[in-house]
Parts: sequence; C-alpha cells; structure tokens
Amino acid sequence: MELKDQIAAFLKKEFPQTKVSVEQVGEQSATVRHTIGPEELRPGGTVSGPVMMAVADVALYVAILGEIGLEALTVTTSLNFNFLRKPSASQDIIGVCKLLKLGKRLAVGEVSIYSDGEPAPVAHAVGTYSIPPR
Amino acid sequence: MELKDQIAAFLKKEFPQTKVSVEQVGEQSATVRHTIGPEELRPGGTVSGPVMMAVADVALYVAILGEIGLEALTVTTSLNFNFLRKPSASQDIIGVCKLLKLGKRLAVGEVSIYSDGEPAPVAHAVGTYSIPPR
Amino acid sequence: MELKDQIAAFLKKEFPQTKVSVEQVGEQSATVRHTIGPEELRPGGTVSGPVMMAVADVALYVAILGEIGLEALTVTTSLNFNFLRKPSASQDIIGVCKLLKLGKRLAVGEVSIYSDGEPAPVAHAVGTYSIPPR
Amino acid sequence: MELKDQIAAFLKKEFPQTKVSVEQVGEQSATVRHTIGPEELRPGGTVSGPVMMAVADVALYVAILGEIGLEALTVTTSLNFNFLRKPSASQDIIGVCKLLKLGKRLAVGEVSIYSDGEPAPVAHAVGTYSIPPR
Repeated sequence: MELKDQIAAFLKKEFPQTKVSVEQVGEQSATVRHTIGPEELRPGGTVSGPVMMAVADVALYVAILGEIGLEALTVTTSLNFNFLRKPSASQDIIGVCKLLKLGKRLAVGEVSIYSDGEPAPVAHAVGTYSIPPR
Repeated sequence: MELKDQIAAFLKKEFPQTKVSVEQVGEQSATVRHTIGPEELRPGGTVSGPVMMAVADVALYVAILGEIGLEALTVTTSLNFNFLRKPSASQDIIGVCKLLKLGKRLAVGEVSIYSDGEPAPVAHAVGTYSIPPR
Repeated sequence: MELKDQIAAFLKKEFPQTKVSVEQVGEQSATVRHTIGPEELRPGGTVSGPVMMAVADVALYVAILGEIGLEALTVTTSLNFNFLRKPSASQDIIGVCKLLKLGKRLAVGEVSIYSDGEPAPVAHAVGTYSIPPR
Repeated sequence: MELKDQIAAFLKKEFPQTKVSVEQVGEQSATVRHTIGPEELRPGGTVSGPVMMAVADVALYVAILGEIGLEALTVTTSLNFNFLRKPSASQDIIGVCKLLKLGKRLAVGEVSIYSDGEPAPVAHAVGTYSIPPR
C-alpha cells in the first residue's frame, strides 16, 4: 500500500469522524480536501470557522506523518489561524501544508486554506506538533 | 428575554450545528459549555482538537456579543491556540473567556478551556474579532 | 543568594544587552520591568513594539527558570503577541507572566504587559519554551 | 525618489533606532536586512530573539507601506513567531515578507527570516496590521 493510502487509513482510524481526505503527501508537504455540505455551512452561505481549523490541523498532521511514519502520539501543541476571506459555500475546502521545520522533538508547518478553484487563500495557519521520542 | 437567552437564540440561528450552550455572559466575559459524546471523541479516550477550537471561538464571540449586541457581521480574524493537557473523554468542555480589549474595530480576548471539574486548563486561546462599523 | 538574584545575575550573563530587571519570581509566575528612555521610544510618544516583545520573552523565561533552575538551553519556540493599547512614553513597561503548563519538554505561559501604573494591559503574549532533557 | 527610498526615509523618521534597511518592496512583498554586530548577539554565538522579531515586524510594515503609501498610523495588532533554527552570529538577518491579505481595515502577511546565505529559514512570523480609515 502506498504512503498516501496508509496515512488515509490511519486517519480514518484515529479520527473516525473526519471528512478530510488525503490528496497528496511527501517531500515535507501535504494536500488535503474537506467536502462541504449542509453540516459545514453557516447561514448566509459560508463555511464554518472550525471546519477550516480542522483542515489546517489535519493537513499538518498528514505532512508530518509522511516524514516520520504512522505515529499516533504525535500531538498538536499550538495552532495559529488567520481568517482572510469568506470561503465559498459551494466549493470544497483544500488545505496545502509545507513543513518549515522537522526536528527531533518538534515539527512546525504552515498551511494555506483555499476554496477549491479560487487562487487567493481563505485562511492561513501555522502549527506546531510534538513528536514522541523514538 | 434576558441577554444570555437572547445570545443563545442568536447562536442557534447563526451556528445551527453548534453543540455549545451559554452558561454566563456579561462584564466583558463569557462561559460556554460543549457537551461531549461519541462524535467528539478520538480513539484512546480524548476530545478532538477542533472541538476545543470551536469552544474557544464561540466563547469569544459570546463575550463580544454581550458587549456590542447581536451583530452577525462580527467575524473572527485570528485565533491562537495552545494545547496544554489531554482532556477527559467523560467530561464536558468548558470555555471561559475574558476580553482584553474592546475597541471600535477590533476586540481581543483570551479563553481558558477546561474539562469540567478539573482545575488546570486543557487548552488556552487568544483571538481577535473584527467589529463592523456602527 | 536568593532565587530572584540568581536569575537576575544569570540574565545579565545570557542577555548582556537587556534592560529588563526581575521584580518577582516563583509559584509559576514572574514580574519583570523594562526602564524606558529615548532609545525605546518612537516619534509621537510611544514605546517601540519590539521592546514590549522583549519584555514578554524575558518574563516567560524568568518564570520558567524560577521552576527548573538556571538552564541556558531553554529556548523560545513560539511567541504570539497582541498589541492592545498605546503605551505611555513616560512609564516603564512591566511584564507579568503566569505559566499555563510546565511539562517535561515544553512550558507555556501567558504574559500581560503594562505601562507602569495603568490598570489595562497594553499588550498580551502567549509563548512556548522548549526545555532540554534532564 | 523611488518608492524603496521613500519608505527607507520614512522608516528612519518613524523608527530612528532601527538597524533595518529596505532591500526590496512592491508587488505585495518586501525584503529587509538587519546588520548584526555585538549588540545583537547572545553568548554562545547566536542572534537575540527580539532582533528577529523586530525584523519580522519591519518587513511586514514595509510591504504594507509599499501598497498603501506612507501612513504612520498603520499599527501592528498581532504577531505570531516561530523560532526554527539557531541563526548564525556572523551573518545579517534577512526578512522576506509576502502579504496574504490587504483589506480596507486589516492587512495580514507572513515573513520568513533567514541568516543571510542560508537556505532554511531561522524563524517564521505571521502578523496583522490595522490600517487607518482613508
């Protein structure tokens, strides 16, 4: 089974409720997709903030797992979000993560969040994960 | 109808999926509660990170609405989270927000997140909301 | 020599340029003071942003050293600042830190920054330090 | 006088103590340089954290001024830093800013901080500025 599918299976086990799927992983990066339906929307036609936060968190997790392997004890220690533009209610949310640092104890990455098909990001996040001793 | 109930009704309309209820609001502060069930848990017995992020976001929103009134165009611009301890799988999540600044254009507040009944916070957040011109 | 003086001497050695002095340390907290002179001011009569950031960083460092001892390899991994109000040009800057978590590998704390004598904070910070294995 | 020189002159007036010079500005981006000497160093041979924070703050300010013009009332509202690697004591610090959003009221940008000549960033920042009504 290739790495992307291994990580997708691992995510499904660790986060059984997640609606995030893995599109790409490797080379210190990852791209994930969250399908958007009525449960993710707010009145007025936009995507709920916590949905975008979840996408950022998972994108970063996937990028790290792509480097260190399937390690469930890798946990988020901090996440910083900036909401930039109103996302479309009719497009999936895409998260594109690039790792800034992969240390022995900490990994740091940034995530750009998009409404699928739009060039300008709707949100941006930077997060830190703690990596267990190996 | 008192302020707390007005805000609870407003939240229900703006965020129809939310499981967060309002426990206290006023004096530049708010306390909210998120009931925890199977949908909020991860294997191993802990609460999912995005649940805590949603609690922080709503707690801050409620504290601001308590000062400026029911204004749907008040939107999150940034949120910074630190995950401190593993929350209990069997306790509700409580968010306690105190506003640090309530300006004409921006409001800033901090939120301590607890597993109900535990003295040490499981997470801490600082967030900024943009307030529409009035 | 008492703890406060030990830490003050350690700071002077580690950060020879710092103008920050230690006012209180212990019980997972610290208070520090930065005297303000022409070098810290901006035209228009306010304190430069980086001065307040340095105060937050040192306040957190002092609070951690107060718990773990004089450990130079304790390094900042992240700092999140919110600027709340214009500080006075004629008052010292005071930083009051409270630790939120003191783990084996990471410490997290929040810092309220004041113009000396004013009740409302001029800035607020949350930071994370990495603690070396012991 | 070209834009870069106008902004450099403006910076010198607004932040008379700054050691940051402007290398590039325009197209929603900026590059700045901070020369490093004994005053910026810590024992053990590294650059002090507040120096890097100041570089991030100025890089973001310059990128915004490059878009909106010389507006002194543009003020930092938040800054989030991640320290990634130990900077070299013998190289200048370079800050490269790209704006993520330039709204009417808020601008958001990210800044990668480098030791001059090294490919991997030593720090990364995301910041928000408030833009005065025009």
